[in-house]
Amino acid sequence: MSLIPSKSRLAHIVFEHDDKASKNFDLWVLVLILASLLVVILDSEPSLNEKYHQEFYLLEWIFTLLFTIEYFLRLWLSNRKLGYVFSFYGMVDLLAIIPTYLSLFLINTQFLVVIRGLRLLRVVRIFKLARYMREADTLKKALINSRTKIQLFVGTILTVVLITGTVMFIVEGPESGFTSIGVSMYWAIVTLTTVGYGDITPLTPIGKFLSAVIMLLGYAIIAVPTGIVSSELTAVKRESKQITKKFCKTCKTSNLDEDSNYCKYCGEQL
Amino acid sequence: MSLIPSKSRLAHIVFEHDDKASKNFDLWVLVLILASLLVVILDSEPSLNEKYHQEFYLLEWIFTLLFTIEYFLRLWLSNRKLGYVFSFYGMVDLLAIIPTYLSLFLINTQFLVVIRGLRLLRVVRIFKLARYMREADTLKKALINSRTKIQLFVGTILTVVLITGTVMFIVEGPESGFTSIGVSMYWAIVTLTTVGYGDITPLTPIGKFLSAVIMLLGYAIIAVPTGIVSSELTAVKRESKQITKKFCKTCKTSNLDEDSNYCKYCGEQL
Amino acid sequence: MSLIPSKSRLAHIVFEHDDKASKNFDLWVLVLILASLLVVILDSEPSLNEKYHQEFYLLEWIFTLLFTIEYFLRLWLSNRKLGYVFSFYGMVDLLAIIPTYLSLFLINTQFLVVIRGLRLLRVVRIFKLARYMREADTLKKALINSRTKIQLFVGTILTVVLITGTVMFIVEGPESGFTSIGVSMYWAIVTLTTVGYGDITPLTPIGKFLSAVIMLLGYAIIAVPTGIVSSELTAVKRESKQITKKFCKTCKTSNLDEDSNYCKYCGEQL
Amino acid sequence: MSLIPSKSRLAHIVFEHDDKASKNFDLWVLVLILASLLVVILDSEPSLNEKYHQEFYLLEWIFTLLFTIEYFLRLWLSNRKLGYVFSFYGMVDLLAIIPTYLSLFLINTQFLVVIRGLRLLRVVRIFKLARYMREADTLKKALINSRTKIQLFVGTILTVVLITGTVMFIVEGPESGFTSIGVSMYWAIVTLTTVGYGDITPLTPIGKFLSAVIMLLGYAIIAVPTGIVSSELTAVKRESKQITKKFCKTCKTSNLDEDSNYCKYCGEQL
Repeated sequence: MSLIPSKSRLAHIVFEHDDKASKNFDLWVLVLILASLLVVILDSEPSLNEKYHQEFYLLEWIFTLLFTIEYFLRLWLSNRKLGYVFSFYGMVDLLAIIPTYLSLFLINTQFLVVIRGLRLLRVVRIFKLARYMREADTLKKALINSRTKIQLFVGTILTVVLITGTVMFIVEGPESGFTSIGVSMYWAIVTLTTVGYGDITPLTPIGKFLSAVIMLLGYAIIAVPTGIVSSELTAVKRESKQITKKFCKTCKTSNLDEDSNYCKYCGEQL
Repeated sequence: MSLIPSKSRLAHIVFEHDDKASKNFDLWVLVLILASLLVVILDSEPSLNEKYHQEFYLLEWIFTLLFTIEYFLRLWLSNRKLGYVFSFYGMVDLLAIIPTYLSLFLINTQFLVVIRGLRLLRVVRIFKLARYMREADTLKKALINSRTKIQLFVGTILTVVLITGTVMFIVEGPESGFTSIGVSMYWAIVTLTTVGYGDITPLTPIGKFLSAVIMLLGYAIIAVPTGIVSSELTAVKRESKQITKKFCKTCKTSNLDEDSNYCKYCGEQL
Repeated sequence: MSLIPSKSRLAHIVFEHDDKASKNFDLWVLVLILASLLVVILDSEPSLNEKYHQEFYLLEWIFTLLFTIEYFLRLWLSNRKLGYVFSFYGMVDLLAIIPTYLSLFLINTQFLVVIRGLRLLRVVRIFKLARYMREADTLKKALINSRTKIQLFVGTILTVVLITGTVMFIVEGPESGFTSIGVSMYWAIVTLTTVGYGDITPLTPIGKFLSAVIMLLGYAIIAVPTGIVSSELTAVKRESKQITKKFCKTCKTSNLDEDSNYCKYCGEQL
Repeated sequence: MSLIPSKSRLAHIVFEHDDKASKNFDLWVLVLILASLLVVILDSEPSLNEKYHQEFYLLEWIFTLLFTIEYFLRLWLSNRKLGYVFSFYGMVDLLAIIPTYLSLFLINTQFLVVIRGLRLLRVVRIFKLARYMREADTLKKALINSRTKIQLFVGTILTVVLITGTVMFIVEGPESGFTSIGVSMYWAIVTLTTVGYGDITPLTPIGKFLSAVIMLLGYAIIAVPTGIVSSELTAVKRESKQITKKFCKTCKTSNLDEDSNYCKYCGEQL
């Protein structure tokens, strides 16, 4: 019995999730992803960056090397190598390691924004988590069922936002911060969604009255998408319960439970 | 085969949506509407207006001329010309081109607000999109069904807002920004709808306590319209599923349950 | 035929809502209530009060006299006079006229807050509208059914608010505006209900992290009351549809539609 | 008949809730808990603390002594003493009295934050209320049923928050207050949950556009958890109605439909 597992055993550990070794592998990748994301987040904090720049840089390279090993391991074990490279997960796995390597070549240039953006591209690693998400089915089904209704809803909202934005731009004008239709539309969305930053607020009595009307409208509108998803989920749940029914030839009843052996009305064997 | 289509062919292209030519026509009108709206929005941005005033002016005239052609085309092809002119779509099509022509005569006057309002009236073009909205039926039905309940709900809200506004006006007074019952009611709506700009906030302990009570109330109230629309949509959906019905030839009843063997009204075997 | 109606005819006009005269009476009272509320609201606006003080004062006395006439009319026409005086509507009708009369005696005193409060007590007139509200039944039934769950919910919220308020008071302290547990609890309610004024916001990293957790919690909690009312309304609606069912003695089926004459399964006459 | 009740009678009063004496005991404990919480809250108010420090200190000791008596009473009356001490309620009862005693030893030290935290630990008394909460069952069941969906939902939210936070950090930068990914994520949560403090707001046009997109997304997302809980509650309610079941003596099945004439499993007549 060798310490180094065979290639097929390794493939099982990497791609399956059904025994102890493969579950441990999954767990360690998960921990690595979350830890590397934490380092990206903490690294962006100016006070921490100043103190622990060296440590973060070292950790970043450790994570990158480990993810690089994971990438080539998956590539080597994969039967259809090109298929993996161009799959969603393959792209994410690659994008998760490239930025660190590229930063080697760009560190001395003056394109600071590009570098910062590049370094932050590392958060794409969160999509590596998608591998561990199952059970999204009912939710996805309900969302897809209500897609056309949601499109219609977003269309309605955007119409309301455009009209409202234009009217408030005329009523309030640049003095109150409504400097253009675009900004007014931003204000309308902030108000309709009940976020309400307060960075732009109506100052004139007419503007305040109109805002109040829009808020009440938004309050009524918020009921619609909730109702849509809610009724879709209820429907999906109901359907998944009404599976198949049995039929009784004697009393012609057709809605008998699937697990019936005898008709519950006339006692006939099914 | 002539390059210029016949009048009946043109009418088909303009009014129907079932072959390639008519679908292309729809698409181009859609693109024109959205592009012209974008120009109105960008034109209102001071920094862009300064730089590209000439270009926006030119584009605006191109859109107006194209929409004018569309208007007269629809008028010419329509069987009931007066019917079109005074229909909802006829009015919208007219309002979408008038402002630009009127601005020719008003550009040198001093009624700046009127001109600005007039020029922005062009956003009415968004209603031209209504022609392309179908599928709003379930949604509309649910909203109409819950109309009386929503009226009642808005009535309740306005009562709460008036009482709250008055009480907060007495408790907080003008020092905290609650300068009149009107302003207090504006604050009450901002709070109840959970928008919460923060332009007016309670400063006294009693005012803060009352605000907290109102917020919790609003939190409870928001459940009501959502629940109404939600249950209406569930009901509408449930009804629309019980479609496959059986028909009785003897008594001409058509809404018999799908699992019926005999007509429940006349006893006829189906 | 006299111009002055008999007492019984007057009682019909005042208390019933079924013919033209009584409907007109209702309409005029409604208009009077809304107009008098508008005067109270506008009167509180400092700029308007300065200009139109005389006119508002005159209008207020006209409304008060008309409501006084209505009060004594209802009292005279009522069979159980004491019953009317101490009923909800009798109290509201009286409270709607008293403030104006009392202001005669208090106008020269120094209790300005008392006077202002007294004058604003006139908004109690809004409850006179309650007479014209019907159809609140389904809504009321759903709310009463979910009463215990809503109590539980408010209890949970208040517990979360007390704990959160205390923790944030310790973490942030008076420097960030969290000057006492009371103020911290006010902040917690403003945050949990997603109102978010922004008058008090966390400044320390730990405070921001805790706030984010509380917001996500509030986001999850908001689903609960909505779900409660929603499912109650669905249940109330479903019950009102599942009336009584018929039973077939031949095939022993019991869930036949109420309007069946024959069993839909075996054709037996019911 | 002695004035001092027997030990078994005392145990009944303390642990049961079914006669007058035990209900009175419950009521008094409830009042004590709420009163002691009120003192903690008021005591933290600087202006009140200055004036009534002596009174609050006295009251605090009275509450602590009474809760101490309650603790030892419960301990003495309990059959399984260690079980009580380490139970949830036992821990809470102990934590409710310890801080006051500890403050005796710490009052002169310099660990002010520790003392403040310790004194505020007294709000843990709110959990003593848990004893009086029943009826949470339907709610708890619905929440547990939708647990996996809610986990998935929180996971999705956190992914959106991380991506959004990083993008806004790149787009807006430290000049607009987005000083780190952590702060940007705090802003993203404040925005997605529609709290909208307004302490950090986008200043650039691109940032405003992105914020608007995120708000509309949040508006759509809020529909999901509401829909989940809503449909779960509807399902739980529907199930709890289908209770009256028939029982088959032959095969010992107890969940037969109420309208069964014959057992659907063994065909036995019921």
